[in-house]
Amino acid sequence: MAKYLYFFGGGRAEGDGKMKDVLGGKGAGLAEMTNAGLPVPPGFTISTEVCRLWMRSGRQTPAEVDIEMRQYLERLEALQGQKLGAGENPLLVSVRSGAKFSMPGMMDTILNLGLNDASVEALARRSRNPRFAYDSYRRLIQMFGNVVLEIEKKEFDRVFDAKKKQRRVQLDTELRAEDLKQIIAEYKKLVKKHSGRDFPQDAYLQLQMARDAVFRSWFNERAYHYRRMNNISDDLGTAANVQAMVFGNLGETSGTGVGFTRNPATGVKAFYGEFLMNAQGEDVVAGIRTPVPISELKMLMPAVYEQLRQITTRLERHYRDVQDFEFTIQEGKLYMLQTRNGKRTGRAALQIAMDMTAEGLITRDEAIFRVDAGQIYELLFPRFDPKTLAKAEPIAAGLPASPGAAVGQAVFTAAAAVEWVEKKRGPVVLVRGETTPEDIHGMEVAAGILTSRGGMTSHAAVVTRGMGKCCIAGASGIQVDEPGRRLVIGKQVLKEGDWLSLDGSSGKVYAGQLATVPADPNDPMLLEFMSWAEPFRKLGVRANADIPRDARAARSFGAEGIGLCRTEHMFFGEGKIEHMRAMILAKDEKERRAALKRLLPLQRRDFLGIFEAMDGLPVTIRTLDPPLHEFLPAREQIMVDLEKLASASGAAKRKLAGELRKRYADYGVRDAAGLRKLLARVEDLHEFNPMLGLRGCRLGILYPEITEMQARAIFEAAVALARKGKQVHPEIMIPLVGTPKELELQKEIVNRVAGEVLSQAGIKLDYLVGTMIELPRAALAAGEIAAQAQFFSFGTNDLTQTTYGFSRDDIGKILPVYLKTGVLKQDPFATIDQEGVGKLVRMGVESGRKTRPELKVGICGEHGGDPASVEFFHRAGLNYVSCSPYRVLTARLAAAQAAAAEALSEKAAEAGRTR
Amino acid sequence: MAKYLYFFGGGRAEGDGKMKDVLGGKGAGLAEMTNAGLPVPPGFTISTEVCRLWMRSGRQTPAEVDIEMRQYLERLEALQGQKLGAGENPLLVSVRSGAKFSMPGMMDTILNLGLNDASVEALARRSRNPRFAYDSYRRLIQMFGNVVLEIEKKEFDRVFDAKKKQRRVQLDTELRAEDLKQIIAEYKKLVKKHSGRDFPQDAYLQLQMARDAVFRSWFNERAYHYRRMNNISDDLGTAANVQAMVFGNLGETSGTGVGFTRNPATGVKAFYGEFLMNAQGEDVVAGIRTPVPISELKMLMPAVYEQLRQITTRLERHYRDVQDFEFTIQEGKLYMLQTRNGKRTGRAALQIAMDMTAEGLITRDEAIFRVDAGQIYELLFPRFDPKTLAKAEPIAAGLPASPGAAVGQAVFTAAAAVEWVEKKRGPVVLVRGETTPEDIHGMEVAAGILTSRGGMTSHAAVVTRGMGKCCIAGASGIQVDEPGRRLVIGKQVLKEGDWLSLDGSSGKVYAGQLATVPADPNDPMLLEFMSWAEPFRKLGVRANADIPRDARAARSFGAEGIGLCRTEHMFFGEGKIEHMRAMILAKDEKERRAALKRLLPLQRRDFLGIFEAMDGLPVTIRTLDPPLHEFLPAREQIMVDLEKLASASGAAKRKLAGELRKRYADYGVRDAAGLRKLLARVEDLHEFNPMLGLRGCRLGILYPEITEMQARAIFEAAVALARKGKQVHPEIMIPLVGTPKELELQKEIVNRVAGEVLSQAGIKLDYLVGTMIELPRAALAAGEIAAQAQFFSFGTNDLTQTTYGFSRDDIGKILPVYLKTGVLKQDPFATIDQEGVGKLVRMGVESGRKTRPELKVGICGEHGGDPASVEFFHRAGLNYVSCSPYRVLTARLAAAQAAAAEALSEKAAEAGRTR
Repeated sequence: MAKYLYFFGGGRAEGDGKMKDVLGGKGAGLAEMTNAGLPVPPGFTISTEVCRLWMRSGRQTPAEVDIEMRQYLERLEALQGQKLGAGENPLLVSVRSGAKFSMPGMMDTILNLGLNDASVEALARRSRNPRFAYDSYRRLIQMFGNVVLEIEKKEFDRVFDAKKKQRRVQLDTELRAEDLKQIIAEYKKLVKKHSGRDFPQDAYLQLQMARDAVFRSWFNERAYHYRRMNNISDDLGTAANVQAMVFGNLGETSGTGVGFTRNPATGVKAFYGEFLMNAQGEDVVAGIRTPVPISELKMLMPAVYEQLRQITTRLERHYRDVQDFEFTIQEGKLYMLQTRNGKRTGRAALQIAMDMTAEGLITRDEAIFRVDAGQIYELLFPRFDPKTLAKAEPIAAGLPASPGAAVGQAVFTAAAAVEWVEKKRGPVVLVRGETTPEDIHGMEVAAGILTSRGGMTSHAAVVTRGMGKCCIAGASGIQVDEPGRRLVIGKQVLKEGDWLSLDGSSGKVYAGQLATVPADPNDPMLLEFMSWAEPFRKLGVRANADIPRDARAARSFGAEGIGLCRTEHMFFGEGKIEHMRAMILAKDEKERRAALKRLLPLQRRDFLGIFEAMDGLPVTIRTLDPPLHEFLPAREQIMVDLEKLASASGAAKRKLAGELRKRYADYGVRDAAGLRKLLARVEDLHEFNPMLGLRGCRLGILYPEITEMQARAIFEAAVALARKGKQVHPEIMIPLVGTPKELELQKEIVNRVAGEVLSQAGIKLDYLVGTMIELPRAALAAGEIAAQAQFFSFGTNDLTQTTYGFSRDDIGKILPVYLKTGVLKQDPFATIDQEGVGKLVRMGVESGRKTRPELKVGICGEHGGDPASVEFFHRAGLNYVSCSPYRVLTARLAAAQAAAAEALSEKAAEAGRTR
Repeated sequence: MAKYLYFFGGGRAEGDGKMKDVLGGKGAGLAEMTNAGLPVPPGFTISTEVCRLWMRSGRQTPAEVDIEMRQYLERLEALQGQKLGAGENPLLVSVRSGAKFSMPGMMDTILNLGLNDASVEALARRSRNPRFAYDSYRRLIQMFGNVVLEIEKKEFDRVFDAKKKQRRVQLDTELRAEDLKQIIAEYKKLVKKHSGRDFPQDAYLQLQMARDAVFRSWFNERAYHYRRMNNISDDLGTAANVQAMVFGNLGETSGTGVGFTRNPATGVKAFYGEFLMNAQGEDVVAGIRTPVPISELKMLMPAVYEQLRQITTRLERHYRDVQDFEFTIQEGKLYMLQTRNGKRTGRAALQIAMDMTAEGLITRDEAIFRVDAGQIYELLFPRFDPKTLAKAEPIAAGLPASPGAAVGQAVFTAAAAVEWVEKKRGPVVLVRGETTPEDIHGMEVAAGILTSRGGMTSHAAVVTRGMGKCCIAGASGIQVDEPGRRLVIGKQVLKEGDWLSLDGSSGKVYAGQLATVPADPNDPMLLEFMSWAEPFRKLGVRANADIPRDARAARSFGAEGIGLCRTEHMFFGEGKIEHMRAMILAKDEKERRAALKRLLPLQRRDFLGIFEAMDGLPVTIRTLDPPLHEFLPAREQIMVDLEKLASASGAAKRKLAGELRKRYADYGVRDAAGLRKLLARVEDLHEFNPMLGLRGCRLGILYPEITEMQARAIFEAAVALARKGKQVHPEIMIPLVGTPKELELQKEIVNRVAGEVLSQAGIKLDYLVGTMIELPRAALAAGEIAAQAQFFSFGTNDLTQTTYGFSRDDIGKILPVYLKTGVLKQDPFATIDQEGVGKLVRMGVESGRKTRPELKVGICGEHGGDPASVEFFHRAGLNYVSCSPYRVLTARLAAAQAAAAEALSEKAAEAGRTR
């Protein structure tokens, strides 16, 4: 028979800390702490395997698990000398979720399980604290009703608040036992009404139902969403931990708290935590009451504080990483309820990795992996300009829960945050009294988070640190009026849409938009850390940049060249777009050439700037790529305008005509006839599927004069700089190639123009002509294409579109359903699809190099800045990845980690062989 | 040194009939006839290799070729005892194109080359026929001026017609030598004016220029277009044949003609041809004068006729195929100028193959290949209903140049034909005095061709027979007024757009639209022929059919099942589209289910009909595939209508509102607010790239209730028929799958519904659930997908779109340029791209079968009816192809030929080994 449950207690545990797969993170931590002799309330873990069985059996827990669970409960009862929810000293338990990968606050928990109408009386008698007993029972019914029976929380709140109102009290703690008894009676009615059954008095039935509800919470909306954000598979499932209750709410010598062995926001080595006396755990994490810094515990209970420090220091040594722990003090006695490796910001990860190496706790080779490549780019986040900051007057201050600088417009609900961002109304700051797991969508899109309640370990703080997002928590001077959509600070009132600036490093809140400056990429600690990792790296890292400013930024972040310079972006600028439009609207080649002639000097200037910024490094320039109608007004807009013009008369018509002349001035439209002509041309360029239409090299083949002009601009700029002694290495890249002939035709033009310009200038210049591989056919015919190409650059955005048949612009409706139904494990535009698109990449590299062994192969596109994808490209043997400037550091570290992991595992294997 | 030229003459030739690659078809024929001792004017062939050199050298013929050509000319002069364009007996030559694959009339020819101001006098003296000499000279200047110097033909015509007018004559032959001399003087001025140089008097220079002009004509528009239509590579180039002139225009004992050894329209074994006395070859082929049936030659010159019969019969025996020959009679002496395998209609090909087998000229195994699979479907062309035909009164009659029944609206220029068809104004009949090679675009799109001049071997006749298109030529009773866009038959006048019906088998022309009936697929000759070919066939052939009528037709043509039944086509019918629209516009699942419920019985009825028609054979049904907005009105139309409504007022507004209510009645729109709501929904469904959007199985995954309804309709229909004792084999096919999970999810629905319907009915029914492989990712992940699929069907249309990144709807602008520049050798949507898309097909088959060896694999899509593609699918090891009903016969023959070629070459190889 399979083993489904694992006991811990009495100084011994059946599992251990390595068994996260089976026990989940929490269960493994409890087992390890128990084995280490730490004070942990005993209990047992129902393994993740049970959850998976439950999923596969149509959400039913198999009977054999129940048999085993009954045995384990009896063992727990024997150890404690209690009976679950029975007798004069009833056993109460908590039932908590705990998955392999920590998902803080995403799943459900039930406390005080085992209470019923009889045991609550026993508890009251035994604790000599009836208020505590009834409060615990009322909490159970509320949690059970909400989590297990799925009754809305607000139904319970309504009853509770009505009682407070009736009793004219402010705080929960002001309610007396008698009041709580009445509330319990009301709660039971609620349960009966909404679930059609009585609140279960059978404690074992409570346990069964709670266990299954914990499993079910694996699939709740926010857990699901969290897994998507963190690339966690839906198949893993959660474990459930059943543990004897200890009570932090037994009075003033009881309490509960959470903490970190080092500061998770900054990484500073300082014991760090918060607690609340006379409270249950949920009160701290949920951010409902603002907790007290752990230093105060030293004053209140020095012995407990000392014990806690010793235990957690031991845990950090044991796990060789920062610990995030939970504890409860019951009537002066300390219990450990959880320990796990702590989540931290990128900045903290770096600091901790460096410190722990210095302390000899970990080696340099280990330290390399202690900073998440996906997080390190936070170090390059802009900060507020110190000069501006010096003059600015904060309007409020809170806890610096997660560092960074956020500037955005105030919104007061997660839904509003999502809406503002979807409607592209600019960045937002989400302002909440406290955040709850339901807010996760809004938090994800917000530039920063500001809360008026909650501490450094509150939901808002923990989640934003994980996201690398700025957060100020517990800014107690402010009053958040969510329904009124406003924020009151003293006499000052800020409404929805008002700008706020948050300094997550100082905890200061400013009104308006404060200026930011780029981060310093030469941070000495970062440089040292990278100097450990980089020697492993085999993959080159370039940046995608279209303007000199981005190129310079990329270079400062360590980019070894430009992997993609999109020339079309240059055409959008003022003073250029009209020539571009004239080029598109040209009747014939002659008109088109005239417009191109006007574009040439402008384009040359663009290239001059980029080449200068990248002096000595290669710059890959892609020839014109997008469908031309992107530069023209929308077809339906012209149609409607024409219709308006036709219907209007008199003065209204003259006014409208004037407006339209202005609107369409760039297109040389002077009257209705001109507008109709424009419409005809726009119709002519209209395509049903522009992504699969006249774009990429197809433009250059239909209109060779465009490629000609671009090549001329490139080489004239290169010549001008070469004369000044600069080193220019242009790599001209032809987009959307599907056949060798396309590349050949475009290459001919480039080489001809290069020959003309260079021989006229009398200058020798090395340059390459290569191609994007962004169509499945290009990957399939890579062998033949390589005969024409000096380099390949995989355009994995387009390649993903065509391989999957997914338009990036249209996937919005499909993706959420596809992720939810498990069709896709992740957004294939964020992380490369190794089985499909990746297969084409491997085929393309292999057959390209077969034809031309020295072929340089890179990838440009979003995937170049995604650590998992970078790891894949490393394995696929690419020469470089190219990503957006701010992802360069991420790509460098991810590439180094991929190579280091490979090198270290080879070394280990070798050591194994020689031993 | 490479050999560039090949001599023929004096009973011996350097080349032979097998050297079509080098000599072109014409050159090879001339060599073969010379070797056989037939009367062929001597000359030499400039090989296709020279043309290719000319292409590669920037359209310059290398000097070494010129050196060799001078030697060959001297050899010809020696043999003839003449000098090119010099002396008292000047040698005149023709320079004719001749490519490997015959391209009748597409390239250029120059006759009478060698004439100049001196030699024309010598010719006049020697022939004692000054009129003949000056006529020849004026023809040379005209042809040379047009072909070599690129002066428009109408410039020469103007001079010529002015002279006729001045001389008040009707016929060219009525002009006297003196008139022709004056014309020559005018022509020379024309040449000087337009080309800036004098007409070259140096005969060798004439020859060089003419040769290069022939090479150039390989690239003219019509030749280019012809190659595209016939899949001939642009790289081949043409040979040029230089041959001593013989003159058919030397008087009444001279003449020229063309013929076939059997009737190329019907295949009947009858000597068949036409000639003109006192004429040059171009006069016959160009259709300018209507020639005389060859039987009349028997009366005029019995000995020549007898000799011609003997020679051509010998040629047919020699080549073992129908010969298409050209001859000239010079003063009573017969010369053969060309022989080649004759082009023929599908009907004729069949007849000839059967006859030649019966005659013992070829074997059955050879006969199989004598009918072009791409042509045989002509045998299934509808014919006019005999009952209607019996009562109909023809308005005119001409030569039955190419059989078939054509119904269309009269148009009088090729451009008009193209325009009408592009604007989807229905089928057209192209009516011309005579067709010229410039008309080829219009001929291609016309349903049939009617000419008032020209014979059975005129341009119109030859080209239409090649196209398998109905043609009536030389309908002499009619008068075509091209500029006036009308057709005059006696007193009757037909204008552009008037309907005509052509019976290509009888040569009769009818006014109006005559009813047609389908062809008889049980033609005994066809059945016998197919009984020779079919035993070889390994590939199954199914049809794409969405309605019972098409299914029945397909079955009668030998389809072995339905390979693709597109369910969306069914929704477009009256009484269905409104429920479909309601389904799409539904606010929520409930509304959607209500609309689907109304669709269910209608869809069930559709399936009933198809299943019944295919009783005993498998029917593959594809679930809903297209983007939903295809069922809704265009977004911009609603926008414009809303704008109109907003601008209108008073009575006009009420009227418009009424119109719009009617127009949008199907969508439940009653007022402007309703229209705005409709627009909002249409906007919501709007996609940037619908081809890559919400379609295929994505619909069924987002709205499982759609798949559910379709599955229910399928199984309920199947059950109803099973109860009646019919054999139903549904194969449910899920479209646009990219991952195994998509198929799994949809299969679950199908299996669940099937289980419900079948168990309720108490009926057992075998069915399959499989998938389209139409995305590159599906082909790449075929191994995993096969675990879920009982069959694959390659959707090569979509697969071509995504592999190439070409939208079928948008390729129109790109394709012509891509074909012209050689990027594409052929339209990848017509013939499968073996190097790209084909590679995915092979990968998909291989990895699919690795997972599931018994996997059934088919292909549905346009490629299923294309012979070259069918051959590829045979080699790729597919189980079946599925094509449109009228291509079933083509697919069957192509599949049989592919297998037969393989089997026969294996047999030959084995015979070789055992010998």
